[in-house]
Amino acid sequence: MKKPTLASLAAELKVSRQTVSNVLNFPDRVRPETRRRVQEAIDRAGYMPSAAARALRNQKAMVLGLRLSDPRNGISGSFMDGFTHALVTLADKQGYRVVLFPATTKAEEVDKLVELRRTLAIDACVLTDTWIDDDRPAQLLELGVPFAAFGRPWDATDHGRWVDVDGRAGAREAALYLRSLGHERIGFMGWSDGSPVGRDRMAGWKEALGLSDAEALDLVLESDDTVADGAANMSLLLGRGVTAAVCASDSLALGAHTVNRRRGRHGVSLVGFDNTPVAQAVGLASMRQPVADVARIVLDKVLQQLDDEDSAQDGVLLAPSLVTREPEG
Amino acid sequence: MKKPTLASLAAELKVSRQTVSNVLNFPDRVRPETRRRVQEAIDRAGYMPSAAARALRNQKAMVLGLRLSDPRNGISGSFMDGFTHALVTLADKQGYRVVLFPATTKAEEVDKLVELRRTLAIDACVLTDTWIDDDRPAQLLELGVPFAAFGRPWDATDHGRWVDVDGRAGAREAALYLRSLGHERIGFMGWSDGSPVGRDRMAGWKEALGLSDAEALDLVLESDDTVADGAANMSLLLGRGVTAAVCASDSLALGAHTVNRRRGRHGVSLVGFDNTPVAQAVGLASMRQPVADVARIVLDKVLQQLDDEDSAQDGVLLAPSLVTREPEG
Repeated sequence: MKKPTLASLAAELKVSRQTVSNVLNFPDRVRPETRRRVQEAIDRAGYMPSAAARALRNQKAMVLGLRLSDPRNGISGSFMDGFTHALVTLADKQGYRVVLFPATTKAEEVDKLVELRRTLAIDACVLTDTWIDDDRPAQLLELGVPFAAFGRPWDATDHGRWVDVDGRAGAREAALYLRSLGHERIGFMGWSDGSPVGRDRMAGWKEALGLSDAEALDLVLESDDTVADGAANMSLLLGRGVTAAVCASDSLALGAHTVNRRRGRHGVSLVGFDNTPVAQAVGLASMRQPVADVARIVLDKVLQQLDDEDSAQDGVLLAPSLVTREPEG
Repeated sequence: MKKPTLASLAAELKVSRQTVSNVLNFPDRVRPETRRRVQEAIDRAGYMPSAAARALRNQKAMVLGLRLSDPRNGISGSFMDGFTHALVTLADKQGYRVVLFPATTKAEEVDKLVELRRTLAIDACVLTDTWIDDDRPAQLLELGVPFAAFGRPWDATDHGRWVDVDGRAGAREAALYLRSLGHERIGFMGWSDGSPVGRDRMAGWKEALGLSDAEALDLVLESDDTVADGAANMSLLLGRGVTAAVCASDSLALGAHTVNRRRGRHGVSLVGFDNTPVAQAVGLASMRQPVADVARIVLDKVLQQLDDEDSAQDGVLLAPSLVTREPEG
């Protein structure tokens, strides 16, 4: 059977196309009797205006754009995948779908978003992985692409709407927890990529312990976010008399844990970040990020703009929470 | 500046809208001189037909639908996230985006796909997690929604286009590897959910070792796909004199590994499935699934149908490969 169209329905019912269209979009404009007759035919035929036709008319795609996060090691990556899951599920409840696309640079991401928006393929977008001197928020604001970011603007100027997790407060809590266990030399294992998230977490650790720059220098090691680097740096920190460590990620904490385990009862105490399944599996303490809350508020901020372009540009900082665990043997 | 439209461009150039449209879509129909003049104005104005307008004209969305996989434990889940990453990246190179949507049942998934296709929001879709008596392939074929599946049809009838990984061959290889290490009592840790993938892997293990049903029964334990269940079942298998085990997943293998480690040099040898980052991290042997190849062939099979509705309905089975590792202390 050929798919019914506005035109074929109108011909079949001997009414104008405008009448069929009105029944779908402005039923009040059509006499009840005609409305009923047209609606019955529509139901019978299974006719539905296409997404394309509706997008043209409403200028709305009911789709949000999201750049596919770079593949990371699967341990830390599980956190961004959790965010994507939460966002897609919550957006669906509001009638929005999420379209994923890859981009190798932030500039390419902006180009693609502008193009998707200009062609009405998306209504708005969600940014992640904000960085220092991140041009994306300012550019999207200027180019009129509605967005909200998971991640604060790390420079002084406050661009757009965002939600972030207070990693500094989280690292503070982690350090104070380790101190409460009786540890005095508590190290920090961070990232060597200059990540503002990593720097923020390091600042929280340093703050909680009241360390001078010189004291901190001796207790910090930075590396790539890998299990192997976590293991290597744990060995180095052990040589410096460290008995506990705050780790910027569960990947690093898992690496530290593997060194640790060989030392049996004399192992160091660790707190990781993200409360990943791996941390749960091997019994590592970790800071849990409220990923579903982040997704919910990001989505709210995006959709608010679609209703009201002038909705407030502001940010929300959510607190992570410590999950303690007994390491398995 | 107001966004240029077909109409505003036509007015500016004093040509018909049809002429502007022809320059965009059928340049051969326009005299070279006019074509040049219109094209210059289009370039200058940055005019682009909207995705909605193009979809209406071409009946093509350049979007593929993909149901968001159920959140699993983050260990095994990393494999499906890897597939999504590969698919989105490869599709982008062909000009296609991937739209994600949630569904709580297979019936809801089909309903949403049919709706997305009927409204021209997607051109085709990708199925995952095929099951025994899975109605989706037959339904989508009947309803005319082009698709390819990652996962074979597990019933006798061969519906649609699919790509799968030969888990039976993988489990065979894993079992023979453990035997080559000198093990004689090699157990199997599987899933209790009746998953055809799990059953297939168990069949491969049994086959490789030439076990009778009675012999196999003593060496198999099935459970949920969790680290805790893996640990509990490993303890039970140790009580039955098992010295090595093929595990249907890295989650189960990691659980087994935690029990194992407590036994030091007397631990059992393990092979997991999926070669997840966790297996890499803790030094577990695992069967690697060729996820990028799966995504590439699934995409080929989807796009072929868009060019040729009658492209062959067939399936491709890819072999996994064993990655061996020395467990860390």
